[in-house]
Amino acid sequence: MDITDIEAAAQRIAGHAVRTPLLNAPLLDRMAGRRIFVKAECLQKTGSFKYRGARSAISALSPDTRAKGVIAFSSGNHAQGVALAAAEMGAPAAIIMPSDAPRMKIDNTAAYGAEAILYDRETEDRDQIGAELAEARGLTLIKPFDNEMVIAGQGTTGLEIAEQATEAGIEEAEVLVCCGGGGLTSGIALALADRAPHFTVRPVEPEGFDDVARSLQAGAPQVNNRMGGSICDAILTPSPGQITFPILHAHCGAGLVISDDDALQAMALALKHLKITLEPGGAAALAAALFKLEGDADVIVTASGGNVDAPMLARALQLDAT
Amino acid sequence: MDITDIEAAAQRIAGHAVRTPLLNAPLLDRMAGRRIFVKAECLQKTGSFKYRGARSAISALSPDTRAKGVIAFSSGNHAQGVALAAAEMGAPAAIIMPSDAPRMKIDNTAAYGAEAILYDRETEDRDQIGAELAEARGLTLIKPFDNEMVIAGQGTTGLEIAEQATEAGIEEAEVLVCCGGGGLTSGIALALADRAPHFTVRPVEPEGFDDVARSLQAGAPQVNNRMGGSICDAILTPSPGQITFPILHAHCGAGLVISDDDALQAMALALKHLKITLEPGGAAALAAALFKLEGDADVIVTASGGNVDAPMLARALQLDAT
Repeated sequence: MDITDIEAAAQRIAGHAVRTPLLNAPLLDRMAGRRIFVKAECLQKTGSFKYRGARSAISALSPDTRAKGVIAFSSGNHAQGVALAAAEMGAPAAIIMPSDAPRMKIDNTAAYGAEAILYDRETEDRDQIGAELAEARGLTLIKPFDNEMVIAGQGTTGLEIAEQATEAGIEEAEVLVCCGGGGLTSGIALALADRAPHFTVRPVEPEGFDDVARSLQAGAPQVNNRMGGSICDAILTPSPGQITFPILHAHCGAGLVISDDDALQAMALALKHLKITLEPGGAAALAAALFKLEGDADVIVTASGGNVDAPMLARALQLDAT
Repeated sequence: MDITDIEAAAQRIAGHAVRTPLLNAPLLDRMAGRRIFVKAECLQKTGSFKYRGARSAISALSPDTRAKGVIAFSSGNHAQGVALAAAEMGAPAAIIMPSDAPRMKIDNTAAYGAEAILYDRETEDRDQIGAELAEARGLTLIKPFDNEMVIAGQGTTGLEIAEQATEAGIEEAEVLVCCGGGGLTSGIALALADRAPHFTVRPVEPEGFDDVARSLQAGAPQVNNRMGGSICDAILTPSPGQITFPILHAHCGAGLVISDDDALQAMALALKHLKITLEPGGAAALAAALFKLEGDADVIVTASGGNVDAPMLARALQLDAT
């Protein structure tokens, strides 16, 4: 796949996905000692960038296939994206979600009109559950990241970043992306390789789930030992995808790793300075820009999602208050 | 003043002020039983719409006048707007602030490079303090609302609302505006009277500070009895302005009044559904749309500011969690 796939996705989702703003806060810049620009995908429909890929993939199906319905598995953001995009296009949707996903994500998925099917993240294989249900009902499986139309949809974020960086007068930058299976990261990397080749895209992952960082270093896909245990639920995946890894390997700089506390601190600072709600996984790239990245060069980060329950937000606020 | 003043202000602030998004959340709409569109001025530079008016007014000064410096009095959002706009244009700025303003607003005003001068809201007359200091130093007083260039700057919010409403397919709507002295409300009312005359602009105020609602009803300016005691610090003013009242009277529908609890609930729902941080006064219009407005017609609300300390946000989150 290449830039033309992303351009085609941009055409399919135009008028549906939100062109989210690239935010900046001078007082946050001062604190960080560098300019930080924040692509606020928490303001995307359904509260995360996942709507882009979902709308891109479902709109690429033939009308007959689409009418039979779609199925997806997701910790919650892809779930909501697929649920809303399917509802908008009149397609039935079944969503397989881990039972420990944030309540808001499960509730919202159902509220958008999808059927939410819960599974145990530690003991059950979501891929198998998904494949069986798809077979039984004739549903099309919309994978969360290892799907070219999904990657192309996420890549539209990169097209916008390139345009908005030009508008903001950013000539060179590191672009940090919250990374689970690599759908958003590979999409943005492909888009920027064409539109802003001077920018370096780098994945950001939570401690213990740095499969992409290690895979990039090793030059071959690596697997995480843990399956759960971080608050960054949106970006906990076992390994990079078969489609995403070669793209990441071809286009990305070294990965960065943040702790849960880094994510919480970044959430508090996002509320305070940027005036946006971020979930832990959606704050990973901002956390890396604030606490892990060396130097003082401009940095662009994705604020990939904001679907977080009130107690977790309150936990972040307590950090800020102390 | 008329629409040409607002168009001129739009030209002066172009490339400096953020064109903030008009947000929408389907699940919030479902809860409210109507479509609610949110003009997210909390994402404006300095975290509120006040930057627009400040930049408009300071950029309208002659270079010599500007170089001598400006002075402003404000509970905090106008303060920050003037501080940043002045700093961007190389003008010294002195800001007179009530000593009970949120800590963040006082700190940020100083951080943007202005001199912050505190006064007691209950016992001192900020107008007198401002006038004396302006006289002594040759500073130009930038009033928070009763200044045509400030109103014109705030009115650029209305130009954007008209454009964005068209893009969103909104044909008729009530437009609810968080209202203190009426600078934003009168600016938006003037803009929409020209660009979207079918829209009805209505001011929203906190209980006990409904001077504008009562003034509109009486047909003449009314004064509040209280000077403090609401958490909606951004919109506590004694009476409508001499310039703003005639505009409000000519163009606005009846005012709406909300309680502090309404504001806190709206803040919690904004965090949850819209993914934005609002301060109590900046959530007033959203609160009115959710809890006070009859019918099911489309409504557009200003989310005018997001400069709130962590404990107040935590207080709002507790409402959501229970």
